[in-house]
Amino acid sequence: MIIEIDDPADPRLDDYCLLNDQAARRNREGDEFFIAEGYVSIDRVVDSGHELRSVLVTPSRVERITERVPGLADGDTPLYVMTRDLMASAVGFDLHRGVVASAQRRPVASIDDVAASNWNTVAVLEGLNDAENVGVIARAARALGIDALVLDPTCTDPYSRRTVRVSMGEVLHMPVARATTWPDDLERLHAAGFTTWAMTPAADSVDLWEAAASRPPDGRLAIVVGAEGPGLTDATMRATTHRVRIPIHPEVDSLNVGHAAAITFAAIARPR
Amino acid sequence: MIIEIDDPADPRLDDYCLLNDQAARRNREGDEFFIAEGYVSIDRVVDSGHELRSVLVTPSRVERITERVPGLADGDTPLYVMTRDLMASAVGFDLHRGVVASAQRRPVASIDDVAASNWNTVAVLEGLNDAENVGVIARAARALGIDALVLDPTCTDPYSRRTVRVSMGEVLHMPVARATTWPDDLERLHAAGFTTWAMTPAADSVDLWEAAASRPPDGRLAIVVGAEGPGLTDATMRATTHRVRIPIHPEVDSLNVGHAAAITFAAIARPR
Repeated sequence: MIIEIDDPADPRLDDYCLLNDQAARRNREGDEFFIAEGYVSIDRVVDSGHELRSVLVTPSRVERITERVPGLADGDTPLYVMTRDLMASAVGFDLHRGVVASAQRRPVASIDDVAASNWNTVAVLEGLNDAENVGVIARAARALGIDALVLDPTCTDPYSRRTVRVSMGEVLHMPVARATTWPDDLERLHAAGFTTWAMTPAADSVDLWEAAASRPPDGRLAIVVGAEGPGLTDATMRATTHRVRIPIHPEVDSLNVGHAAAITFAAIARPR
Repeated sequence: MIIEIDDPADPRLDDYCLLNDQAARRNREGDEFFIAEGYVSIDRVVDSGHELRSVLVTPSRVERITERVPGLADGDTPLYVMTRDLMASAVGFDLHRGVVASAQRRPVASIDDVAASNWNTVAVLEGLNDAENVGVIARAARALGIDALVLDPTCTDPYSRRTVRVSMGEVLHMPVARATTWPDDLERLHAAGFTTWAMTPAADSVDLWEAAASRPPDGRLAIVVGAEGPGLTDATMRATTHRVRIPIHPEVDSLNVGHAAAITFAAIARPR
């Protein structure tokens, strides 16, 4: 359903207001919606089965977006069309891709959901407040067969525009759970049969390849990684069952957190 | 040697002019110097043995930088001190870290140097024009025991400020070679005993773990990765001895290039 809009204050555009303003942005985990920008991200919203609330494009993008998104030209989903200047005024900055969509959020899973699920391998992220790190780890997790992401209470919104884009939309294709009591929720994972690996460069840890070789093939495993710089908190290290390190050059301090996660995912996916 | 400067056009600041202006910046591979910003990068310049040409700081940074860099207070290396406003005017933008250094470049190695070296494993990057990708791959390469980086003619300057920073300074600690005839230079690696792996998600490729298991433990190996999106060019694929894929979920298009490189480095470093 194509709708031309010429008032940037039109309330039908509320989902898109102040997209780029971290302080004022309305796209948060408590919101009903999330925002995807660019053709690839919007394609992934659609193929992941998330329901589109609306799409907003400049006039030159109408043809291409209606070709890509079934039912947009003549279905119920509004396709709002605005000039680029008006769009910039509505969203609060110049959206150079000229195509953005709002989609309905699904409820984030709980730790109880993780416990009750059939997910065997999960990636647990602590303190990752960088949208790109969460996005790139989600992409690697899905590519390498991890069943779900679990975020501690301080991790950034997994459905932020940048996270969705950097994940190449993969974050939309995997379950995401949010822990609420941290790090105590790790105990609930243990009670549900999970072994937990704290990934750390610390010397008093098990080599990744040994840990991967000695793990029960069908056992449940949670890989716990912390933010670049501080790494995992002491409380989380104490709350995990194992400490695991990726062997690195003795003069090098650490790996990038995304690299450490990806190598670990690949190591446990390796056929034995 | 502490020198206060109050003229932003002082020619002693020439190394720092227009640092952030991609078009006009003077810090290029053809230059005699490269620029490192922030305490950590400057520490790594020093501990890697690169010679400092000068350091530029705001007055409040003098004490800390002279504590960290031996000989700066009373040696021959100039420590230029300027107010933050004057510094912004000199370098062309507000340098919020307030501490930046210029260091002498070493000659980049050639493919002949790689052939004649005792480097057994090298990472070859094609078409990586993103400074962060080159930096993060350098960090992983050094951490995971890769002996040298080889860049095709189109890769970005490995000593750009961002590359040095994102690599956590590790790029300064490893040899970097630049190919000049591409992809023909791969033939010269083969002549010097290297096997070359084109990393690709293509189906007609060998699984990484099989390739790693069947490779001669002391053989020379070049891991060749291409840019995010296009991947390796057809000519480069044809010029390599093997095509190797990291097994991923069939619905996922590809891994991030840095993740693919890091997983491959880790796989060949894995003890057998």
